[in-house]
Amino acid sequence: MKFVILMVVFVAVASRCEGVTSKFRRKREATEDMPFDSDVFSVPDGYNAPQQVHITQGDLNGNAVIVSWVTPTEPGSSTVLYGTTKDKLDKSAKGKHGQYKYYNYTSGFIHHATLKHLKYDTKYYYAVGVGQTVRKFWFKTPPQVGPDVPYTFGLIGDLGQTYDSNRTLSHYESNMDAEAVLFVGDLSYADHYADHDNRRWDSWGRFVERSTAYQPWIWTAGNHELDFAPELGETVPFKPFTNRYHTPYKASNSTAPFWYSIKRGPAYIIVLASYSAYGKYTPQYQWLNEELPKVNRSETPWLIVLMHSPWYNSYNYHYMEGETMRVMFEKWFVQYKVDMVFAGHVHAYERSHRISNTAYNIINEKCTPVPNQDAPVYITIGDGGNIEGLANNMTEPQPSYSAFREASFGHAIFEIKNKTHAYYTWHRNQDGEKVTADSMWFTNRIWLRTDDSSNVV
Amino acid sequence: MKFVILMVVFVAVASRCEGVTSKFRRKREATEDMPFDSDVFSVPDGYNAPQQVHITQGDLNGNAVIVSWVTPTEPGSSTVLYGTTKDKLDKSAKGKHGQYKYYNYTSGFIHHATLKHLKYDTKYYYAVGVGQTVRKFWFKTPPQVGPDVPYTFGLIGDLGQTYDSNRTLSHYESNMDAEAVLFVGDLSYADHYADHDNRRWDSWGRFVERSTAYQPWIWTAGNHELDFAPELGETVPFKPFTNRYHTPYKASNSTAPFWYSIKRGPAYIIVLASYSAYGKYTPQYQWLNEELPKVNRSETPWLIVLMHSPWYNSYNYHYMEGETMRVMFEKWFVQYKVDMVFAGHVHAYERSHRISNTAYNIINEKCTPVPNQDAPVYITIGDGGNIEGLANNMTEPQPSYSAFREASFGHAIFEIKNKTHAYYTWHRNQDGEKVTADSMWFTNRIWLRTDDSSNVV
Repeated sequence: MKFVILMVVFVAVASRCEGVTSKFRRKREATEDMPFDSDVFSVPDGYNAPQQVHITQGDLNGNAVIVSWVTPTEPGSSTVLYGTTKDKLDKSAKGKHGQYKYYNYTSGFIHHATLKHLKYDTKYYYAVGVGQTVRKFWFKTPPQVGPDVPYTFGLIGDLGQTYDSNRTLSHYESNMDAEAVLFVGDLSYADHYADHDNRRWDSWGRFVERSTAYQPWIWTAGNHELDFAPELGETVPFKPFTNRYHTPYKASNSTAPFWYSIKRGPAYIIVLASYSAYGKYTPQYQWLNEELPKVNRSETPWLIVLMHSPWYNSYNYHYMEGETMRVMFEKWFVQYKVDMVFAGHVHAYERSHRISNTAYNIINEKCTPVPNQDAPVYITIGDGGNIEGLANNMTEPQPSYSAFREASFGHAIFEIKNKTHAYYTWHRNQDGEKVTADSMWFTNRIWLRTDDSSNVV
Repeated sequence: MKFVILMVVFVAVASRCEGVTSKFRRKREATEDMPFDSDVFSVPDGYNAPQQVHITQGDLNGNAVIVSWVTPTEPGSSTVLYGTTKDKLDKSAKGKHGQYKYYNYTSGFIHHATLKHLKYDTKYYYAVGVGQTVRKFWFKTPPQVGPDVPYTFGLIGDLGQTYDSNRTLSHYESNMDAEAVLFVGDLSYADHYADHDNRRWDSWGRFVERSTAYQPWIWTAGNHELDFAPELGETVPFKPFTNRYHTPYKASNSTAPFWYSIKRGPAYIIVLASYSAYGKYTPQYQWLNEELPKVNRSETPWLIVLMHSPWYNSYNYHYMEGETMRVMFEKWFVQYKVDMVFAGHVHAYERSHRISNTAYNIINEKCTPVPNQDAPVYITIGDGGNIEGLANNMTEPQPSYSAFREASFGHAIFEIKNKTHAYYTWHRNQDGEKVTADSMWFTNRIWLRTDDSSNVV
């Protein structure tokens, strides 16, 4: 009952274009990692059984899938068998395997194989562990890239491996329509442990396998992927992440796995790297400068950007950390009419109005975010539920750029209906699966550039 | 005569704390690279003779020197012989050599050897090319690190290898007192040529040898060191630079050669990397966060920062490019009372007032640079004379943060007299050696925190 009332308040307030700070208060409780012997981390039975199976898009258009997994005892086979009939895996893809050391930890044998030339919109079955303990999974390829193919993305960030993380994942899984996860960074939080205990990278891989083995998760690198620890002699940033999680960066002419693009159905998704260089002339800058003009909104009407550190965030956590990237790239986002920007990092939820802050020239005093219908909506979805706990301290009063904010764990769903409309819902963990705690119809910035700020439902 | 009058104007205007845009107009002429067969690029005689000899500080305190050189035909010896008597080089340091390929270019054999445990304030003679063509040079070590040891630095940026570059270097050499060069980035401009013709890295090394073999140049990486060229298959940034120019980064606990510190006499010099990552949590950020509190101003009263891309620049070239780093680090510079920041990138000269712009919090509209006696003076000294020509188009009116600007090629000299005073002079190339086109007595931010803005002489 309380919830219904809250919804009404949203509509009323949002129509005046002021911000809402949700009155929902989460029950305070410890955010605690699940123990290694938890069921959700269980090691699959069988000799050298493949574990931590995960898939991601393997090319620019969605005709390929990268399958990754870990074998614990010996390398075993790096081959994936696959096919469109469950009992007839008549194709195979040969991958490669590697290992890495991190301080006093040595990883299992990490395999990556790319399945290419897949048919669109098709269910594929696949098997790993060939010749030893075979495990079977399946995935569905996306529809052919095009403007009016409906497609539904899930959005998860800063997940970790606590009991809350498990609630978030289960809650996401109950939203049956989502076909791929846009993950906005901070995976395992292994670096929370002494010596960055990399066994927590393994347990995380086993934890999320129930989703990542069946639908692609599109990876963004967060600060907890850095694993930069000179005191341990570990000075190469992103070592565990790059060994374990591959991205199809070369397909979009990127030169590093931390920034890249994919097309998926009606969406063009650009992944940016908050923790790589982005100053003018740097590889990421040059890449984005060349990438944005390539986006053909007639082919992919929805232009979505993922990054870890948000540009618009009104919590007292990581406040203004995103400025250093914002001042470089915000003008481009407005120029190219990015529809949505999803970020993580702050362990709470926030949705902005369509605003920009690009008029500043040092001497003109124009440094306030202003309404701009060419600008994206910025959504912070770093509320996966990791061990660092909830960001529940907000700047007051709520700044004018902030449309809605609530300190709860959860996930979001972004349902692209056609080239003009997308239905967006945020789901807090405490609610039942069908409840939406924040929801809105977004209109496309190219094909229906209406003021969608009052489309809160 | 004209010049004397100009000087008077400077004093008059500066005392009112307004900016001066110099009326000096350089004769317009082409900025042109010297041809490969120019004398200044001449290859030394003798079989496999060492060339491109250069030295830099080799440790934190100035007791070590890195000697680097290139042998063209075969590796030869990587050993440096050295000693304090010209004809008795009784010590030796064994170095290493390497080669790199860049597209269709293969480098010569690049040697680096570190001479350690040197005595302070001592002239050393050294020889390279042992066993083949021996070439001899010398250098002088700095005085022991301490607060009241006078020391004079030269400042050069964006040098390149034009006729103007040669004038800048000759003009610098005529200032006999300078004992080391703080080089603020952009060395050879090889990337100006098709396929980044790396022979221009070699010619540059031969060009500057007449200075770099005799006094340490402290290296900052500029954008022309990136040599990032995916179209040539060259995707590792800074490849030629890192192979050719070493820095003592490990001595200051840095994990990459692009950001590091040295102490030299009375100065603590921090070199930052405009083209590496500096977002929160990144290696450079973490390093600087730990480095600034280490600076003991009782030991090294003068805290100097070098970077390539300036934070305060009122030219219509590279305007606001430095913002992305400024918004991260400016608060620290004010907190730790950095005395001077030297940058390059803009091919002209500019000196700021002591100002800061750190009050901004997104919603308070406080985004204007304001006078602040805890802030550094920002000097742009990217006027070495490279092939890209002069930046002669300025924003108008001159912003209040800009104290003096002039579109001429030149260099500067920073003479630290004691812990309270340093005499700074900028020398435009067109003038005779002893003329100063901008000069000022700086007072130390810790030991004599006076308003030195009117100390223009």
